[in-house]
Amino acid sequence: MKKALQQREEDLMLKNHFRQFIGVQIEEINEGTAVIALPFNEKLLQSANMIHGGVLSVLIDSVIGTAIRSVLNDDTFAVTAEMNVNYFRPAMKGTIRAKGKVINKGRSLVVGSADIFSEDGKLLATGRATYAIKEKKQKKNRTGGIIWQKN
Amino acid sequence: MKKALQQREEDLMLKNHFRQFIGVQIEEINEGTAVIALPFNEKLLQSANMIHGGVLSVLIDSVIGTAIRSVLNDDTFAVTAEMNVNYFRPAMKGTIRAKGKVINKGRSLVVGSADIFSEDGKLLATGRATYAIKEKKQKKNRTGGIIWQKN
Amino acid sequence: MKKALQQREEDLMLKNHFRQFIGVQIEEINEGTAVIALPFNEKLLQSANMIHGGVLSVLIDSVIGTAIRSVLNDDTFAVTAEMNVNYFRPAMKGTIRAKGKVINKGRSLVVGSADIFSEDGKLLATGRATYAIKEKKQKKNRTGGIIWQKN
Amino acid sequence: MKKALQQREEDLMLKNHFRQFIGVQIEEINEGTAVIALPFNEKLLQSANMIHGGVLSVLIDSVIGTAIRSVLNDDTFAVTAEMNVNYFRPAMKGTIRAKGKVINKGRSLVVGSADIFSEDGKLLATGRATYAIKEKKQKKNRTGGIIWQKN
Repeated sequence: MKKALQQREEDLMLKNHFRQFIGVQIEEINEGTAVIALPFNEKLLQSANMIHGGVLSVLIDSVIGTAIRSVLNDDTFAVTAEMNVNYFRPAMKGTIRAKGKVINKGRSLVVGSADIFSEDGKLLATGRATYAIKEKKQKKNRTGGIIWQKN
Repeated sequence: MKKALQQREEDLMLKNHFRQFIGVQIEEINEGTAVIALPFNEKLLQSANMIHGGVLSVLIDSVIGTAIRSVLNDDTFAVTAEMNVNYFRPAMKGTIRAKGKVINKGRSLVVGSADIFSEDGKLLATGRATYAIKEKKQKKNRTGGIIWQKN
Repeated sequence: MKKALQQREEDLMLKNHFRQFIGVQIEEINEGTAVIALPFNEKLLQSANMIHGGVLSVLIDSVIGTAIRSVLNDDTFAVTAEMNVNYFRPAMKGTIRAKGKVINKGRSLVVGSADIFSEDGKLLATGRATYAIKEKKQKKNRTGGIIWQKN
Repeated sequence: MKKALQQREEDLMLKNHFRQFIGVQIEEINEGTAVIALPFNEKLLQSANMIHGGVLSVLIDSVIGTAIRSVLNDDTFAVTAEMNVNYFRPAMKGTIRAKGKVINKGRSLVVGSADIFSEDGKLLATGRATYAIKEKKQKKNRTGGIIWQKN
C-alpha cells in the first residue's frame, strides 16, 4: 500500500512547481498519515534570517493534503477549504519535518492536522486544515477504458 | 507618512529572499492598511495548474504583516503567532492582489485581516492573523547613538 | 423579504433552547446579513465577572448562521463545519451586538464573518465560520404536499 | 499536585455562573492536561434537537483554559486571545467529554488543543486556542501578606 501511495505523491510532485521550488521531500506515507521534509535553503529566508512563516504554512497544508490523499477513493480529489496555523519557534537551520494525519473523514469534508519539528525535535508550528472532497469527472478514453480527471 | 512606510517595506523586501522569489510587490501602504500584488508566475503552480494555496497564505500573512508594521512604534516589531485562511476560488492567471488591514491593536497582540482578489475582482481567499508585539533590544553604538535590533 | 426571514428565524428561536437561555434577540435580517443582540445577564458571567468568552463564540456562530440561512434555498440547510474567533476586549455590561454577513457562497460550502460590539461601539471580538450546505430530505405529507425536513 | 489543581478549579467553578449553568464537571487535571464532562441537558439543545455547537466551543475553550491554568505560575493568569473549532458530529445524548492539553508554553502566549468525544467514544469536535499570559497585580493585604489579583 505504502509504496503505491508514495509513487503517486512523487508523480504529483513532478507536476508541482511550487513544492519543487521550495524543496519538499516526501519521507513517508501510510493510510491517513504522512511525513515530509524540507532541507534548509537560503532562498526560503525572510528579512530576519528565519525561514518565512509562509513556508511553514505551505508545509502544514502539503503534509495534510498528502495524508488526506492516502484515504481518498480513486474517483475523488480534495481541495483545501480552510486552514489555520500556530507558530511557536522560528525555523533557522537544518532539515525541518512536517508530520500530518487525518483526524476525521466525512462524506464531503475531511479534516487533518500537522506538526512541524526542527531537526533537533522542537515543535515549530502546528496546524489544522479542512479539505472539500470533489468527484473527478469520468472520461472514457479511446480504447474504452476510464480515465479519472480532476474537474 | 505613506512614502516612508513604503520605503521601509521595500528595504525589508530586499532582505526577504522568499518574498522576492515569489515576486511580491508592494502597491500601497497607509497607516493600518496595505495592498500587495503578485503577478502570475509558472513556478508558483501546483499539480493542477493553479497557484499553490500556500502562496495565497503567504500573501495573507505578508499583507497583514505589512499593514501591522505601519502602526508599530519604532522600538517594537511583530511576529506571526497564528493565522487562518479560507480558500474560495483557485488563482489561475493575471495579477492577484491582497488587501490587508489592522483590526485591533492591543499592548502585546495585534490582529489583522486580509482578502485576496483576482485580476477581475473575484474574492479568492480571506484570512486573519494574530501578531505578537516584541520589543527590539536597544544597543548603544560606538558613538553613543542608539540602534534598535530585533531579538 | 426581510419580514419573512425574520419570522422564520423567530420561529426557529422558539425551538432553540440554548439561544433562548442565553437571551439572544434577532434585531435585523437582510439577504446575506444579520444583527443579533444580547442584553447583559448575570448568568453569563465567568469567574472574573466578565461575560464568558464562550458566549461570544456562540454569538459569532449564531449571527453567521442567521445571515447564511437568509441566502439558502428552501430545500437546503447548513451546519457549522468550523469557526474561529479572536477576542479583543471583555464584555462587561450593557447590550452587546453581533453583526454577521455572508462572505462567499459556493455549491457545498458557505463562509461568513461576524464582529461583536459593546454597547458603546467597541470591537469585542471577531470571527469567521464555514458552514456545509446539506439537502433536506423530501417527505410527502398525507395530503400529497411536500414537507422539507432536516435529516 | 493533582488534588490542589482540582480544588482550585472547583473553587473557580463556584464563581463561574456560565460554566455552572451549562453543567460542566471537572473530571481530571494534571500538569498540562485536563478532562471535563458535560451530562446531556435539554436546555443546551438547538432547534434540530442537537446540543448547540456553541456549547461545544465553550467546552473546547474551558478544557484548554483548565489545562493551561495547571502550568501557570501563581502570579500570572491567562485569557483567550483566539480559538478555532472543527465540528464533526452532532452531540445528541449521553455525557460528552472534552480532553485538553497544553501544546506549547511561551513567555507571553500559551497554546492548547482539545478533542470532544461522545459517550460512545466518537470524535465530535476538535479545536485549538491561544491564551495570552498576564501578570496579576500584587496587593498587600492588611497583615502584610501578599494577595494576587487578576487585573
